[in-house]
Amino acid sequence: MPEQTAYKPGLDGVIATETKLSYLDVDAEEIVLRGYELIELAEHKQYLDLVQLLLQGALPDDEQRSSLEQELKKEYDLPADFFSLFSKLPKETHPMDALRTGISALAGYEKNLDGRREDEISKTALRLLAKIPNIVANSYHILHEEAVIEPKQELPYSTNFLYMITGKEPTQAEADYFDQSLMVYSEHEMPNSTFAARVIASTNADIYGALTGAVASLKGNLHGGANEAVMHMLLEGETTDGFRHLLYEKLKNKEKVMGFGHRVYMKKMDPRAALMKEALRELAVERKREDLFEMCEAGEQLMKEEKGLYPNLDYYAAPVYYLLGIPIDLYTPIFFAARTLGLCAHVSEQYANNKLFRPRVLYTGPRGLHP
Amino acid sequence: MPEQTAYKPGLDGVIATETKLSYLDVDAEEIVLRGYELIELAEHKQYLDLVQLLLQGALPDDEQRSSLEQELKKEYDLPADFFSLFSKLPKETHPMDALRTGISALAGYEKNLDGRREDEISKTALRLLAKIPNIVANSYHILHEEAVIEPKQELPYSTNFLYMITGKEPTQAEADYFDQSLMVYSEHEMPNSTFAARVIASTNADIYGALTGAVASLKGNLHGGANEAVMHMLLEGETTDGFRHLLYEKLKNKEKVMGFGHRVYMKKMDPRAALMKEALRELAVERKREDLFEMCEAGEQLMKEEKGLYPNLDYYAAPVYYLLGIPIDLYTPIFFAARTLGLCAHVSEQYANNKLFRPRVLYTGPRGLHP
Repeated sequence: MPEQTAYKPGLDGVIATETKLSYLDVDAEEIVLRGYELIELAEHKQYLDLVQLLLQGALPDDEQRSSLEQELKKEYDLPADFFSLFSKLPKETHPMDALRTGISALAGYEKNLDGRREDEISKTALRLLAKIPNIVANSYHILHEEAVIEPKQELPYSTNFLYMITGKEPTQAEADYFDQSLMVYSEHEMPNSTFAARVIASTNADIYGALTGAVASLKGNLHGGANEAVMHMLLEGETTDGFRHLLYEKLKNKEKVMGFGHRVYMKKMDPRAALMKEALRELAVERKREDLFEMCEAGEQLMKEEKGLYPNLDYYAAPVYYLLGIPIDLYTPIFFAARTLGLCAHVSEQYANNKLFRPRVLYTGPRGLHP
Repeated sequence: MPEQTAYKPGLDGVIATETKLSYLDVDAEEIVLRGYELIELAEHKQYLDLVQLLLQGALPDDEQRSSLEQELKKEYDLPADFFSLFSKLPKETHPMDALRTGISALAGYEKNLDGRREDEISKTALRLLAKIPNIVANSYHILHEEAVIEPKQELPYSTNFLYMITGKEPTQAEADYFDQSLMVYSEHEMPNSTFAARVIASTNADIYGALTGAVASLKGNLHGGANEAVMHMLLEGETTDGFRHLLYEKLKNKEKVMGFGHRVYMKKMDPRAALMKEALRELAVERKREDLFEMCEAGEQLMKEEKGLYPNLDYYAAPVYYLLGIPIDLYTPIFFAARTLGLCAHVSEQYANNKLFRPRVLYTGPRGLHP
């Protein structure tokens, strides 16, 4: 018999690993990234700063950030003929499945697939961070029979990512909102996708495999996808009155309302959502879509009054992405692209102090049968 | 703080899930599949019987087995133009990466990707069981610029699988050895790849994603790949004397010798290995390669005398595959193809009684930093 430990379905509350990367402090209501509060980082820093922090262990100075950006720019392009892979996929392919297939196929081009040292993984992680936005944007374009939008070397990281999606160079403000959204999606302790990546990496499998498994996990509607569900709900509501009505109906039918509630922020609004709410307020004025902002606020108020629930990140990230002109089907792939950072840092940490994940089971079937 | 439970790196000894599918009984030294001992099944049954047992809950009668085989045969073929996907991959692509990309891409053709009921998953599982051997064999051929070998509808399941690999219709005896190897690789409780698949499926992600993650896991050299390592070691040894010398050298240098030791069979030889040893004995006579059998026996004796270790499945499966004319690079993909059965059964069981896997961490980094 396996050693007796209380069986916790879903490993609820079970410590699966040590990490120096991040921690959800439920008591202090903080998301901690290498000692910093995520929300402070998102207010004062850029996504590239978090790249350096998570992969190298410390925030960069200006020179280090600039050198990091140069390295990323060198890796923006995908291998020649890589896009033809997507033109071979059925048009019905789910965007997350196209992303999963793309990352899996990209492994064949990686020159250092067997590298496991921290410095080697860090280099491979930069390649992945540079190329995954390109895969996200252009697998979508190709599956929708749109022209490929090649990356522009002269554009900063997040600006280029948004440009490859919409085909328009964003304003600085737009690029900043988008960059901030990438920061708040970048890392989150041990959600299912990060756990899946570490489980896979623990067999000494390569990082492309670990990320492929993480895309598969994030696709599940109990994990990623809430941002897309929120936007569909807002569009279904149409107006503030319509949205209120929709929410009341959902509550009456005891349906889950996406975009509310969070395991860390129980007693206050998710401060990541608060950042996105401010972005939405400004974008709504600029786009003359104050009605959308009002709808969201009305929904927020209703859910607080009726259920005592606060909006989470997905609730305000979704309409921000919408006003930035991002197709709804890309919200979860963008979430994954942002989370690539946290995933690479976790995989690197797993290699550095590895122990194969190999749990046991509670067998409840029969015994003693013979064929 | 998360609920305090003792931290077990690698979840060693931790019960991660309930299952009625299989159990490694370390005390009785048995591998149990739905109540039957795996070794008895492998002696008396066929791989298709295990398909019915694991997916439907009971061994089939002759009529049920024949109807199952008909269903599989209908699904042997891959979608039109599917092979062109592999011709787009770099020639250096690892066979497990080609398999991973193939399964991921195949999701785009699945008409019931959102089906989660047991009967729906069972149907999808049969499609995967029918098509994965085709992907394994022909992704290899295409990456090696060999002609595609289309499945033959008239051939039984395992016979057709081996035929697609070698291009020759095997004899009944060859097909039987191969079928037996598929049985002994089909299911093994909760190894890393099965755990990865259940973790991914627990987000309600689809079975193609769960299997993609499992391929990624099995590629790691701490998990799959031991059968390939054994064969390379045998070839390096060349002769009985050479092999003995090689093993002594490895023991002297404290290198791990692949193919020995097992977490269930500690006090006796893995009976799955014993089955494969008998297959090897017969095949060796037929192929006039008695020298290979002698080498293996000499290695078995040496390791027992020097380390008290017994050969495991991989030790005797590798030379059997070698004499069956299977390229060494395909040993792990074939292991995966066989294990597809256990994986599909586990994913189905996960959906039927799901709880999202979401463990916690032991955070050992700093706190209280400010940007």
